[in-house]
Amino acid sequence: MGLLPAPFLQLINALKRLPGVGEKTATRYAMDIFRGGTGFAEQLAQALQDLSQKVTLCPVCNNLAEGGLCSICQDNQRDNTLICVVKDIRDLIAMEQSGHFNGRYHVTGGLISPLRGIMPKDLALDKLRQRCTDNPEITEIIVTLDATVEGDTTALYIKEILKALPIQVSRPAMGIPTGTDIGYLDSLTLRQAIRDRKNI
Amino acid sequence: MGLLPAPFLQLINALKRLPGVGEKTATRYAMDIFRGGTGFAEQLAQALQDLSQKVTLCPVCNNLAEGGLCSICQDNQRDNTLICVVKDIRDLIAMEQSGHFNGRYHVTGGLISPLRGIMPKDLALDKLRQRCTDNPEITEIIVTLDATVEGDTTALYIKEILKALPIQVSRPAMGIPTGTDIGYLDSLTLRQAIRDRKNI
Repeated sequence: MGLLPAPFLQLINALKRLPGVGEKTATRYAMDIFRGGTGFAEQLAQALQDLSQKVTLCPVCNNLAEGGLCSICQDNQRDNTLICVVKDIRDLIAMEQSGHFNGRYHVTGGLISPLRGIMPKDLALDKLRQRCTDNPEITEIIVTLDATVEGDTTALYIKEILKALPIQVSRPAMGIPTGTDIGYLDSLTLRQAIRDRKNI
Repeated sequence: MGLLPAPFLQLINALKRLPGVGEKTATRYAMDIFRGGTGFAEQLAQALQDLSQKVTLCPVCNNLAEGGLCSICQDNQRDNTLICVVKDIRDLIAMEQSGHFNGRYHVTGGLISPLRGIMPKDLALDKLRQRCTDNPEITEIIVTLDATVEGDTTALYIKEILKALPIQVSRPAMGIPTGTDIGYLDSLTLRQAIRDRKNI
């Protein structure tokens, strides 16, 4: 028999599957859940069961949904001509929180990365092409992917698979982020920002 | 209807009760749990339910247990004359992992802190006195509490309530921790270490 009760160790092992959570943090979480009394453990257990039973991916855009279409695809106040392509739902949330986009989304589920074995077929890219083919009202795709090699590759791939369609493919401007001290900025960003300078 | 499905928000809210977990981390965890598929969510839910249904506190020492006595109180290879007093189960685990203590434990459940409203009656201190009174084989209590004002106060309180009994109350030595650069050490620790210097 080990030092700690088996159910406690089981919980620590399950919590260690969370991103960035190691033995110490998992133990701290487990201790806190235990101290939170049955209320906390059961609230969390219930929430997890609801998640696994009720939450699905939207069949159109891959956003989170309950059963059918997601809240954004259901919303008929949104612009059907614009699609913002994001790599995951966290990026979608960030876009929505910025409050400056009123079109639809398409979640790819990641970025093309041959080094990590992620190929176009592993992402919802063919689905994006099909969606654009089936919906002639779409006029622009804003590829809002990370400014990394993987993001650039995926953006170019998207441009390539849509080139037969009368659709504009754009990317957000790159440059100096708000509130940044120029002295700390990396030289690639600075070069891009100077290259794309605007008259004031 | 909000941006995210209700069960997903519920899970984020439950995860936010964990120590040091805010909105962003909770969202990241929830997303990871969702992506882990039903397997992960259900494994975690099951572990939480087992925790809340099976794990209890040991009636003797307040360590975690399954039903009756904890694994340490059940172990008859341990020294009954020594009790190590710790503030919580994480400290108990740290002591056990050091592998240098073979006595019993007593978990107080915290430290005396009038500023935060934690008084002796809120901790398992009376229970410690009772345990020492009932078990005449106990000869020494090692008060392994934090080297803080609260830890010192609690240690003195324990010495006070046990003074009628033929029990030695000790604290671990204070000094320079292994691997520390003297230049970074605080002056209180250094003063204590110099004061308790030993001939080599």
